[in-house]
Amino acid sequence: MDILRATSAIVTAFMNGVSRIIPVETLQEAEDLKKRGYLVAAERDGLVQPFADFGNSPFNFTRERVAGRQIVYSTTNGTQAIHEAGNCHRIVIGAYLNFTALSDWLISQQRDIIILCAAWKNKFNLEDTLFAGALAERILQDPDYYTICDSTLASIDLYRIAKEDLLDYIDKAAQRHRLRKNNLDDVIEYCHTFDLTSLIPAFENDCLIALQI
Amino acid sequence: MDILRATSAIVTAFMNGVSRIIPVETLQEAEDLKKRGYLVAAERDGLVQPFADFGNSPFNFTRERVAGRQIVYSTTNGTQAIHEAGNCHRIVIGAYLNFTALSDWLISQQRDIIILCAAWKNKFNLEDTLFAGALAERILQDPDYYTICDSTLASIDLYRIAKEDLLDYIDKAAQRHRLRKNNLDDVIEYCHTFDLTSLIPAFENDCLIALQI
Repeated sequence: MDILRATSAIVTAFMNGVSRIIPVETLQEAEDLKKRGYLVAAERDGLVQPFADFGNSPFNFTRERVAGRQIVYSTTNGTQAIHEAGNCHRIVIGAYLNFTALSDWLISQQRDIIILCAAWKNKFNLEDTLFAGALAERILQDPDYYTICDSTLASIDLYRIAKEDLLDYIDKAAQRHRLRKNNLDDVIEYCHTFDLTSLIPAFENDCLIALQI
Repeated sequence: MDILRATSAIVTAFMNGVSRIIPVETLQEAEDLKKRGYLVAAERDGLVQPFADFGNSPFNFTRERVAGRQIVYSTTNGTQAIHEAGNCHRIVIGAYLNFTALSDWLISQQRDIIILCAAWKNKFNLEDTLFAGALAERILQDPDYYTICDSTLASIDLYRIAKEDLLDYIDKAAQRHRLRKNNLDDVIEYCHTFDLTSLIPAFENDCLIALQI
């Protein structure tokens, strides 16, 4: 997950009918694929790249733009996280937008689960940690799951503090201030909305597609 | 800091009159120095190394053993953390045992402060995070200090949950279970005792000495 904003945008793209998303790590790959005719979403540090069609605000992935199309996508932290997770049995994409569907699917798998926060340039961030806590709390309600991981326990406790008023709590997170500085904070409320869809994007054959459940 | 148990042991050693401590990263260095006649404390994964005089339980650093002596010290995470902090203006050693003296000294410096958790093999741990939260909360009561760091904010909130009953909260931490498994959990209450000393160990010329305030 990369709540602000990559995975929220990816889930939104599937809600709006994108056929598949090709995540790439480097801007060079993204630019090369743009030249070959792909629709390209690419940002660094929250700013749209000049060669790209748009950046990674969820609001860019409108039905008019993405329905039935494939998109190349490169972000500061999100696409790196997808590639770092490379050796897992399955990689799926989480956001508040698909929270319940994702939780239920994860629980149904009866496998070890790693909740991978994209965070910010290899540093801890609050908004991804809170989502990890929300997800872990939900999964651990199932008696088949347990954790001995300190970071999971901490994320659950932080989410319990924050959940009464998630937006108020997020207000102190550093990424919120980065987005506000760049006038990109219009998406924060949207990115913290539960269960707008039951679609779960999954990483298969180097692409993101909608998981067939 | 490495609350369970390296920095708690280091502070204890100075309370008991050690003259200086030589932190070394590798067991090979520790063993070489043992052969050259040094008193050596060395552990990995909580277990005393065969060549060493003792491990890193604070209770090993008795006045009888350490007063007036210099000790070579290598631990799983603590000594690495000291060396990673290498480029800082000053490096000092923190534990609950010297909490108030350390906080007051840090505030008096009027410099940027990095609170470095040794944690566990490059992974987050609860007990160091709670101490970081306690220290950050205290420092931020001084109007000259502020933070924009998400991990600092999270550590403060976790400490606020935990502080009503720190030992009860620590009970769920993974390191506590590691120590219990090895019958090493007798030190946990001691390592969470506030203000037994005003001594602050400092790293100077590759050694730890008592800071002259």
